[in-house]
Amino acid sequence: MNLPHERLPRVRTNPRWQGTTCLLCGREYGPGDRVFVCGDCGVDGILDVRLDLEAVRRDLPADDPFGVHPAGGMWRFAPLLPVAPEAAHHCWTLGGTPAVEAGRLAAHLGLAGLVIKDDTGLPSASLKDRAAALAIAHAVGLGIDHLACASTGNAAASLAVLAARAGLAATIFVPRTAPRAKLAQLLLHGARVIPVDGTYDQAFDLSIREIDRNRWYSRNCAHNPLLVEGKKTAALELAAALTDDFQGGDERLPDAVFVPVGDGCIVSSVGKAFGELKALGLIGRMPRIYGVQAAGAAPLAEGWRMAGPGAAEFLSRQVLAAIPRLVPRTLADSISVGIPRNRLKAWRNVARSGGGFLAVSDEAILEAIGLLAEKAGIFAEPSGAAGLAGVVAAREKGLISATDRVAVMVTGHGLKDPEAALGRVRIPDPVPPLE
Amino acid sequence: MNLPHERLPRVRTNPRWQGTTCLLCGREYGPGDRVFVCGDCGVDGILDVRLDLEAVRRDLPADDPFGVHPAGGMWRFAPLLPVAPEAAHHCWTLGGTPAVEAGRLAAHLGLAGLVIKDDTGLPSASLKDRAAALAIAHAVGLGIDHLACASTGNAAASLAVLAARAGLAATIFVPRTAPRAKLAQLLLHGARVIPVDGTYDQAFDLSIREIDRNRWYSRNCAHNPLLVEGKKTAALELAAALTDDFQGGDERLPDAVFVPVGDGCIVSSVGKAFGELKALGLIGRMPRIYGVQAAGAAPLAEGWRMAGPGAAEFLSRQVLAAIPRLVPRTLADSISVGIPRNRLKAWRNVARSGGGFLAVSDEAILEAIGLLAEKAGIFAEPSGAAGLAGVVAAREKGLISATDRVAVMVTGHGLKDPEAALGRVRIPDPVPPLE
Repeated sequence: MNLPHERLPRVRTNPRWQGTTCLLCGREYGPGDRVFVCGDCGVDGILDVRLDLEAVRRDLPADDPFGVHPAGGMWRFAPLLPVAPEAAHHCWTLGGTPAVEAGRLAAHLGLAGLVIKDDTGLPSASLKDRAAALAIAHAVGLGIDHLACASTGNAAASLAVLAARAGLAATIFVPRTAPRAKLAQLLLHGARVIPVDGTYDQAFDLSIREIDRNRWYSRNCAHNPLLVEGKKTAALELAAALTDDFQGGDERLPDAVFVPVGDGCIVSSVGKAFGELKALGLIGRMPRIYGVQAAGAAPLAEGWRMAGPGAAEFLSRQVLAAIPRLVPRTLADSISVGIPRNRLKAWRNVARSGGGFLAVSDEAILEAIGLLAEKAGIFAEPSGAAGLAGVVAAREKGLISATDRVAVMVTGHGLKDPEAALGRVRIPDPVPPLE
Repeated sequence: MNLPHERLPRVRTNPRWQGTTCLLCGREYGPGDRVFVCGDCGVDGILDVRLDLEAVRRDLPADDPFGVHPAGGMWRFAPLLPVAPEAAHHCWTLGGTPAVEAGRLAAHLGLAGLVIKDDTGLPSASLKDRAAALAIAHAVGLGIDHLACASTGNAAASLAVLAARAGLAATIFVPRTAPRAKLAQLLLHGARVIPVDGTYDQAFDLSIREIDRNRWYSRNCAHNPLLVEGKKTAALELAAALTDDFQGGDERLPDAVFVPVGDGCIVSSVGKAFGELKALGLIGRMPRIYGVQAAGAAPLAEGWRMAGPGAAEFLSRQVLAAIPRLVPRTLADSISVGIPRNRLKAWRNVARSGGGFLAVSDEAILEAIGLLAEKAGIFAEPSGAAGLAGVVAAREKGLISATDRVAVMVTGHGLKDPEAALGRVRIPDPVPPLE
């Protein structure tokens, strides 16, 4: 069989990608090192991708900095991704999702404007497809035809779907408690599913050993620092849509962006995306970024609140010390995380933007699902609606005001997990038919 | 509240729209008549929209016939839709869905090529959003702020979602047997749901009376002949993607297109779309169009088979006589239709293309869901996968060959109705964790 990636050149990486830097000790790794955990620090999720933005700036044409990549979709932002642009292909492209101006919802919440980056329509119905697509492209560039992760949720679904599109193998490690319907969906897409007789952490540990042993590509976002870069494309698309592809001025850019936070990857990606656009001179100002956690799984919001006004100035080691470790308890399963692996990256990006972290109750999340559905015509899963619940909370706290224009990242479709939201709705009594 | 449609001009229709023609008696109605059932014939679903294609051809710029409409998405094809282009708005836009080249699936089925028009990522996760968007735009043009339909499935979901986006009211009549989860989803989007203590047909009858009495806009696709026109945009996008927006030649156009058939609206829309493009000189040849029904709900396939080789030449009255009335029985609920209301339009369009109708078993539909998921990374609901089941059947019957390039319309997401497909998958036994 002649798959597209068999005809693609084996080009490992974007030449503007310089490797990763440990956020804790500052040690630098090169693009060829394939290091996922800093050898000195031994902590997950603290390596940050380094891009030569000065060189990127010189490369980009001024009149249309991110024209259409032949592969389409998110790959137009290939100059800001660590993989080689040549490894992008239309078989594993996606993105170009809508930025919906939700005027009715803005009026309801008393805001000058509300724009929703709606990623519910991606192939596996969540934003995580963007990370999976980057993983596929990088694996193809490295000549690796097998990817793996530990997950039961959106990350696993995104890997299964994208690997099926690219004709690559996917192995997914899941804990004993994983819902059978979610496993069946992975199997339907041809992924190999390995239930581990233990917890999620035990499934994760086994996945890491098997990935090392078999030289598979790691699609563990908590582990592989490159995957956050794929998620950047959601915020890059949002900024492009609101500035007429960076030709139209900053008036429609949001003052604040609200992002659901579990492991902290997506909120980090939003911070990096806007930060890079500002560094490139493509936008004139950064929005404040707010990370929104479920109250029962809110280590970052809790640490941020305890740290008080000086939180944004914390050094990396102070950040790690400030964030408690919790046993998560929330119905928003995609953000039900007690120890966010990308906590340092998330804190740094949020702090730099002038934003903060918030916690919202499960009740508030269910309310937000209803608001999104009724006033914006978007059906979100609980974690996907947490960002909007954060907007409501921030409006009450005075963090945003009636003159603010706000953006919300809606990260997953309600059909993924409809029970809680639909269970609250009352079905009316029947009427008789015509005679 | 200042909704976008309150600022839009009240322009009723596209000036190139000439009204409708009864396919049975030939009687013509004007654009202002708002006639849904021919007064002479009294049969549903037999009025066909008439467009002045000669005038449309003169209007279109040769170098970019369907440039980007300011509202985006499907509205780039506004010149071929009956509503006024000014009534389109980005709040109720959608479309621009992927045309996925499924090379692995083509190789598996022994075809020269297979392209999938994947409408699973639309806002309510089915192609029917295109009809709802057209209904919204037309209602706005008429100054009507309330839409209604009878449905429990994808049509209802599409109306609820799009009405919420536009800030219009939606009333949906449902039969007593409607699944509660589907009703809850409509209610979540703010629609008014009226359960009728009776069958679907009784709910339909009540909806028609209430629509007339309250002067609501009818989003019953079986009733309102304009809605088929919105669905045309799926095939128009497919043709545009495969011809570099009609500038790149016909080589990549499909030889045959496979479409799931319930009421017959979508298959009619595909025939009309390709027919109009050919009449406009934008494509050089028509694909053969195959309508695919579930074996337990296959009146068109049954009538076509019984009619034999002369089927394509049947006069309209012969067509109506040839199609049996059945009690439908299939797990593919979106095409579980015993009396397809658009049967005449469907037959005419399929016949004119040189294609035909096929029936496929529920077992074959479930197999097709698995093939789509595993070899193309697309998760379809049963009705959404029926088209691919038709490709498999047509290959076995010799209706398509190894030199053919084939297109399939995938019309709805698997998360809408996952049970049957996921129930067939076997979950592997667990392995022990690391020590």
